[in-house]
Amino acid sequence: MTAINIAGKLGLVSEHWSPKIVASFNGHDVMVVKVKGEFVWHSHADTDDFFYVVKGNLTLRLRDRDVLLGPGDLYIVPKGVEHCPVAAEEVHLLLIEPPGTPNTGDPATAAVKTRI
Amino acid sequence: MTAINIAGKLGLVSEHWSPKIVASFNGHDVMVVKVKGEFVWHSHADTDDFFYVVKGNLTLRLRDRDVLLGPGDLYIVPKGVEHCPVAAEEVHLLLIEPPGTPNTGDPATAAVKTRI
Repeated sequence: MTAINIAGKLGLVSEHWSPKIVASFNGHDVMVVKVKGEFVWHSHADTDDFFYVVKGNLTLRLRDRDVLLGPGDLYIVPKGVEHCPVAAEEVHLLLIEPPGTPNTGDPATAAVKTRI
Repeated sequence: MTAINIAGKLGLVSEHWSPKIVASFNGHDVMVVKVKGEFVWHSHADTDDFFYVVKGNLTLRLRDRDVLLGPGDLYIVPKGVEHCPVAAEEVHLLLIEPPGTPNTGDPATAAVKTRI
């Protein structure tokens, strides 16, 4: 394995809300994703959700408040906590989740995660 | 929890090679650290080692090659693989490891990790 440049990997991504796997770490997928617009409210019963903002400004709506994230900001949504990511303009993120975690919280509507 | 600004957390750190915990994720500590100079050769038998470079240039010496990492670069050292981080100038890193992982590979010489 060589160095993985996160911005370079993001440059390979065109679709929004479609996480791409760039590395594996202790049974987790390390992923990049571009997002824009409002996602769906969801939660993950079995895993925390790791968000690190590479570029742009993301609002993580929680049921009791909004968390505003800018470049270089990290937020961990605890497992079971409902959240809805919203991006007025395109945002680039680094995500970490166990393989097979549905990005929508529902396998029926989840994006298929491929490796780049 | 509010947004965790990684650069802001790094601004609270003065010592080198002394990781500080900034968040918890799925049984792991998410940490920031400033490093400068040459560390010790070591490995972790039970965990991969997650390195993300926030600032500066890091060389990860492996037994068979050097991996050069710049800002925005990620590298996962697989568990059991010997490595020696080297930084000619100060480097700022985001690290992820299970709690209690000795940064030197040896509990006798490891830094005590506190939360900031």
